Amino acid sequence: MANKYVYLFKEGNADMRNLLGGKGANLAEMTNLGLPVPQGFTVTTEACNKYYHDNETISAEIMQEIEVALKKTEEVTGKKFGSKENPLLVSVRSGARASMPGMMDTILNLGLNDEVVEGLASLTNNTRFAYDSYRRFITMFADVVMGVDRLKFEAAMDKIKEAKGYEKDTDLTSDDLKKLVEDFKVIYKKELNADFPQDPKEQLFEAVKAVFRSWNNPRAEVYRRMNDIPREWGTAVNVQSMVFGNMGETSGTGVAFTRNPATGEKALFGEYLMNAQGEDVVAGIRTPSPITHLKEQNIDLYNQFVSICTKLENHYKDMQDMEFTIENGKLYMLQTRNGKRTAAAALKIAIDLVNEGMISKKEALLKIEPKSLDSLLHPTFDAAALKKAKVVATGLAASPGAACGQIALTPEKAKEMHKEGKKVVLVRSETSPEDIEGMAVALGVLTATGGMTSHAAVVARGMGTACVAGCKNLSVREQNKEISLAGKILKEGDYIAIDGSTGNVYAEQIKTSEAEITGDFATIMSWADEVAKVKVRANADNERDAARALSLGATGIGLCRTEHMFFEANRIKAVREMIIATDSAAREKALNKILPMQKGDFLAMFKVMNGLPVTIRFLDPPLHEFLPHEEAEMKDLAKELGKTYQEIKDVVDGLSEFNPMMGFRGCRLSVVMPEIAKMQTKAVIEAAIECKQANVDVHPEIMVPLIGDVKEFLYVKNIITSTADELIKKANVKLEYKVGTMIEIPRAAITSDEIAKEAEFFSFGTNDLTQMTYGFSRDDAGKFIGEYYDKRVLEYDPFVRIDEKGVGFLMQHTVKNARAVDPNFKCGICGEQGADPLSVEFAHKIGITYVSCSPFRVPIARLAAAQAAIKNEK
Amino acid sequence: MANKYVYLFKEGNADMRNLLGGKGANLAEMTNLGLPVPQGFTVTTEACNKYYHDNETISAEIMQEIEVALKKTEEVTGKKFGSKENPLLVSVRSGARASMPGMMDTILNLGLNDEVVEGLASLTNNTRFAYDSYRRFITMFADVVMGVDRLKFEAAMDKIKEAKGYEKDTDLTSDDLKKLVEDFKVIYKKELNADFPQDPKEQLFEAVKAVFRSWNNPRAEVYRRMNDIPREWGTAVNVQSMVFGNMGETSGTGVAFTRNPATGEKALFGEYLMNAQGEDVVAGIRTPSPITHLKEQNIDLYNQFVSICTKLENHYKDMQDMEFTIENGKLYMLQTRNGKRTAAAALKIAIDLVNEGMISKKEALLKIEPKSLDSLLHPTFDAAALKKAKVVATGLAASPGAACGQIALTPEKAKEMHKEGKKVVLVRSETSPEDIEGMAVALGVLTATGGMTSHAAVVARGMGTACVAGCKNLSVREQNKEISLAGKILKEGDYIAIDGSTGNVYAEQIKTSEAEITGDFATIMSWADEVAKVKVRANADNERDAARALSLGATGIGLCRTEHMFFEANRIKAVREMIIATDSAAREKALNKILPMQKGDFLAMFKVMNGLPVTIRFLDPPLHEFLPHEEAEMKDLAKELGKTYQEIKDVVDGLSEFNPMMGFRGCRLSVVMPEIAKMQTKAVIEAAIECKQANVDVHPEIMVPLIGDVKEFLYVKNIITSTADELIKKANVKLEYKVGTMIEIPRAAITSDEIAKEAEFFSFGTNDLTQMTYGFSRDDAGKFIGEYYDKRVLEYDPFVRIDEKGVGFLMQHTVKNARAVDPNFKCGICGEQGADPLSVEFAHKIGITYVSCSPFRVPIARLAAAQAAIKNEK
Repeated sequence: MANKYVYLFKEGNADMRNLLGGKGANLAEMTNLGLPVPQGFTVTTEACNKYYHDNETISAEIMQEIEVALKKTEEVTGKKFGSKENPLLVSVRSGARASMPGMMDTILNLGLNDEVVEGLASLTNNTRFAYDSYRRFITMFADVVMGVDRLKFEAAMDKIKEAKGYEKDTDLTSDDLKKLVEDFKVIYKKELNADFPQDPKEQLFEAVKAVFRSWNNPRAEVYRRMNDIPREWGTAVNVQSMVFGNMGETSGTGVAFTRNPATGEKALFGEYLMNAQGEDVVAGIRTPSPITHLKEQNIDLYNQFVSICTKLENHYKDMQDMEFTIENGKLYMLQTRNGKRTAAAALKIAIDLVNEGMISKKEALLKIEPKSLDSLLHPTFDAAALKKAKVVATGLAASPGAACGQIALTPEKAKEMHKEGKKVVLVRSETSPEDIEGMAVALGVLTATGGMTSHAAVVARGMGTACVAGCKNLSVREQNKEISLAGKILKEGDYIAIDGSTGNVYAEQIKTSEAEITGDFATIMSWADEVAKVKVRANADNERDAARALSLGATGIGLCRTEHMFFEANRIKAVREMIIATDSAAREKALNKILPMQKGDFLAMFKVMNGLPVTIRFLDPPLHEFLPHEEAEMKDLAKELGKTYQEIKDVVDGLSEFNPMMGFRGCRLSVVMPEIAKMQTKAVIEAAIECKQANVDVHPEIMVPLIGDVKEFLYVKNIITSTADELIKKANVKLEYKVGTMIEIPRAAITSDEIAKEAEFFSFGTNDLTQMTYGFSRDDAGKFIGEYYDKRVLEYDPFVRIDEKGVGFLMQHTVKNARAVDPNFKCGICGEQGADPLSVEFAHKIGITYVSCSPFRVPIARLAAAQAAIKNEK
Repeated sequence: MANKYVYLFKEGNADMRNLLGGKGANLAEMTNLGLPVPQGFTVTTEACNKYYHDNETISAEIMQEIEVALKKTEEVTGKKFGSKENPLLVSVRSGARASMPGMMDTILNLGLNDEVVEGLASLTNNTRFAYDSYRRFITMFADVVMGVDRLKFEAAMDKIKEAKGYEKDTDLTSDDLKKLVEDFKVIYKKELNADFPQDPKEQLFEAVKAVFRSWNNPRAEVYRRMNDIPREWGTAVNVQSMVFGNMGETSGTGVAFTRNPATGEKALFGEYLMNAQGEDVVAGIRTPSPITHLKEQNIDLYNQFVSICTKLENHYKDMQDMEFTIENGKLYMLQTRNGKRTAAAALKIAIDLVNEGMISKKEALLKIEPKSLDSLLHPTFDAAALKKAKVVATGLAASPGAACGQIALTPEKAKEMHKEGKKVVLVRSETSPEDIEGMAVALGVLTATGGMTSHAAVVARGMGTACVAGCKNLSVREQNKEISLAGKILKEGDYIAIDGSTGNVYAEQIKTSEAEITGDFATIMSWADEVAKVKVRANADNERDAARALSLGATGIGLCRTEHMFFEANRIKAVREMIIATDSAAREKALNKILPMQKGDFLAMFKVMNGLPVTIRFLDPPLHEFLPHEEAEMKDLAKELGKTYQEIKDVVDGLSEFNPMMGFRGCRLSVVMPEIAKMQTKAVIEAAIECKQANVDVHPEIMVPLIGDVKEFLYVKNIITSTADELIKKANVKLEYKVGTMIEIPRAAITSDEIAKEAEFFSFGTNDLTQMTYGFSRDDAGKFIGEYYDKRVLEYDPFVRIDEKGVGFLMQHTVKNARAVDPNFKCGICGEQGADPLSVEFAHKIGITYVSCSPFRVPIARLAAAQAAIKNEK
């Protein structure tokens, strides 16, 4: 069976998702469950990979299998592909392992040609329907399969409409449509120098190839990168006999969820449009009716649908997202899948399913996408500010959370403004997959048309971005760089505020405030902590961040960057004085001015953390970062410090570097200027002593950055311990502290056997470790990384997700060495990958003690750690 | 015996060099051979390490052992330490495993005090001698052990000489010297706030500690770093009963070699001074007599000495360098060791010893210091130029080779001028160990005083630097920044030329020419090639270097850096045009201009190498290196290329990077601009095809730089093979080429299992690999590396010698992965460590196929490879 590339729906099942893709596996499963599914077959993901392996061709073997499956589908449906009498038409759709809504291509009505269309017309007794389907198919085929601009066809249609004075597409008569089909074929020939293919099999093979190709289209690549979907998975292709929701008023099509995807409420939730085809609902061009209306229109059909929904939810033990079509009063299920949902809904559904006895707590934890929790931690409007704010328009509450920012009207503009550090709300008539990168940088998305299942709504929910969709009083004038919002003109760049939980839109700036962990969120977090092995700490440089980290469940501070404390306006002068100092005494004098301030910082953090460990990293960045670089500023500094301009300039010039990332920084500063480590040790230890004396428990962990050799570590450690031990002895308190090191230089990882004998803990600085392992300067990689994605030499950003093969190898090597010295050797991660779920799973696998991330990402990491533990239980 | 820290000479032997140091082991060996050695004992190198381990103190255990050894020495000599009647005086000298001449401290005449000096006076019936010895001892003890400036004592002596109207030290009477001793004790007390120690044992322990301390003095550290001597070795201390060469005219002291250390000629070679003590000969203050004069002065003693020399050479099977003292007509051997020699002498001696049947070829190969060969490859004066040159002065031909450069009068100035790219000749009255760094950067050294065994001569020979010593007509006026050379005034910075093979000095610039491999050199090289496993290639970027490499025995070109070809004046315009290009077509147009030139380069090199492999690395440096950065230049370029200044500036700014070493360079250029790799492939393959068509054999190896992931490699490899294969097919020739990659990014080494499956060879770029493994930017490390040496966190420069622990780990990992794919997988090294003997030995151990180094270093690498093979035979 190794080489079976095509499966009939009745040959597959839900467990074959890797081979058949999600859509194909579920169509098979529904077929097995006896549900009304238009029959067809799935070309496997392996066929997709083979297609790429064979230089983008479909092998004769696979073509043969498709033909056999087609024949069997003809038998099941009693229709015949290419037949004029009883034609089988098919849809051709992508379907990857993971759902990638709207990312890849779909072709409907395939199998139509000049003869078949006539057959369809007489069979349905509906010439208009037949030719409308044909002209749609020609457009879709030309666009999706052959790459002809869809606008060319739309222009031809507009021309006829204009000539005849029509307003809507539906005004076109069957004769108009016949004429249009002829025009379309002329356009097709002109553009492609070939006739529109009349052979349905040729249409089919070309369509299958087009779906395979669409796996690697740019927007699919961006989506995969954002969602950690490997390119190697490939997409399957589902060929399914067509049913028509657009055959008249007893036909229709819709989508529905078994529970509310925004709130998690247990109630059927969905929308449908009568006399509409496939994508019309999703595209958001007409506003559909809620699913409950179906009850009034056709109670039997509604009951049948409800019973299918219940069956599917009980079967899959999860909330389902379904597509269905009604053809002449008969219900067909076109798709089911576990529904995308907001984070709040995900929490509620998970807990409800446990309470309903359907799943276990561990299964519940696996149902929540860790990254989605981010949305729960997004700001809401400040209650007081909201009272004074004026709602100027409303739309659908499509994705919860409040957002306030400056208006961007295109994804490009959104990215540009985001780069400038601005908060952005993307405002569009409607969004399309091309907008995805712009949506990713926006705090909120506002659209004029489209429903709860429109592209904007689905994607924004997936991203955890606030979204108000289908805002009726909004009109977007992209050319004029402005919008009209209930008659009020706002320019691109003006402030706007939206509330994705209420649908309210405000034409003003509104203060937002932070979220808290309560209710369902708190429940899930407590379940997560019960099973997680990897602990979660936070990166925090001050009292406020420490308090936030604690409230979000951090078990300690994994990284306190002391240099951030150096930049404050009242300290920078002393810092500069220290750098300018030409001898040890002058340096110490300047450092003594900083000492009480640093001590105060640590004291405040220790008190907040109240006995939880606090890891303090000593000064790390190149010193020139603290100095001014403009002539005027240097002159000011000279005056301030009583030096000449030339003296200052010499120091600034002397500290400039070719490759500062690999230059005079980290522990190298303390080796050359031991006074720095001494002062910082004093600040830490004196603050800790004060805590002890005030009966506050404290566990300082001093971390030396950028170690590459055990001798460097020993040199700095010796400064730290001699300074600390003297202070502790003098104070006569019992105070324990640890001295450990960052592992962020490849050589430190390689020689970790030696360093582990001297250090009391390790923390992987995965940012720098990635930079040096890859030889990628993070600040410069932008020059080529785009091409790297395009040319598929890089699949994801190793600064976001730990590179397991390269960086991970060094980490594993280090953990092994550390545990050989002490089976409980503490190994943490404090790079920015610390909360990335896949990186957390890797951390779990190699036995990392804790990850440390920004406070807001702590809950994500906690859930990811739990999931890692559950997934790797056996 | 684990804790025995002190050995009598008669307890040791030559095999105990690691424990007793070279000097101690050889004193023991000579004692065992029954030679006249003043007896004593050696405090071991382990004691030195223990001293440092015990926080710079000598443990009671070791003190106890020293006392026991002292007692036994008293028994052997029949003298008594501290006795007035028959006092035992001792010398205290350092002695490391490897000879480090003049680097560490020595104390003579130890054991004298106010009483003992009287006993010595009456025993020798020579009050003047006794008090002269005492004042010397006080000075030496105060200076070496206690750190008092020696000038303080010399000033007191000058004062007496002035008061009495004396000219020379020898004019001082015994009464003067008695007075001087009193003055010296007052100075001692004033400086140190303590009396000069009268207890000989206290003197001894302090002296031993001082020698231990001197192991870590700055000049010893520099020497160790230059000579790859690990700090961990430590130094032994030799305590030896004093014999006096300064007891009168029947006493004397000297040094001798069993063969001529400059030429290798088999003839006793040495110098001695009558009525002189220890260091007087080496210090070069008085000019000594040749050893052959001794024959005339005392034929019996001369014969005894010759017979000892023969015995020692036969025993050690190598040329010996000996120190001896004659005390009242009796000969004592103070030291023997394998003599330092010039490279030419080393070759001749090695070959002679083989011919004399004393050693095998392999033993002979081990006797030559690979680095010393460098001196044989140094230029000699161009014969024609030399005919016209005028000899203005002559001195001793102390270290062979010709040197021409600008005069530097201090080591600091020499270093400064060297940094500016100038060729330097260091001119000094005499050199001292403090000058060592200045000597290291000089092409030649010229001194006014001192003999063939003076500091300047010994050190220059060791370095392979040309040296003329004892130039009588030279006077150096450091304060005036000028010299007078036979009456002619030359300023610092003026040109001077010296010939270390003839002793001639020229006050002008003389053209130098290259050396060749002939005679002894060729013999040794052929022996080396017979045993070496690691092959040696050269780095060469043009026809001339390739030809030189071939003449020096390279087996191929291991690294041809194509970018060097881009900088030539007639090409840089097209290169800039290529960089400025905004699209692929414009880029290709510019590259097409470069193509014929690059092709010409390769063609010339292929012809020279005539079938030997040539590894061509594709464009590597960041593109901004090719662009102008000054406004005026940018404006010129804009004009030239028909662009606006702003367009040029935008490109220049766009290419500037924060960390260019980890930025847009290497294969990243070819991924973003595949046209570059395409053009370079065309140049290589078209040149190779032309060779084939002209019946010249050719083996091009195309090397892709800066690979970090197999996908990058595959992307570029695909460009190369598709371009190359098409050309080869079209030309219809049989041409084989390889496509391989640099391993210079840690991640490439880590994931080498994957890359090895696709690449046809690897070459370690140990420069970049070291940079990224250490996180040391080579351009910036200067800011802290000095402190790193001082503070002992770094012992050697990993850019000069491969860091085996860190970088070496990645290399081993890579070789293992490569050989798992193919047991003959070609793994080379093309970093600058390629010719470093220790690195070559490491390369041998891990199974490297070849090292590639600059042409002049090829012979060094060939010998090092042979030695590595011999040393690791079993």
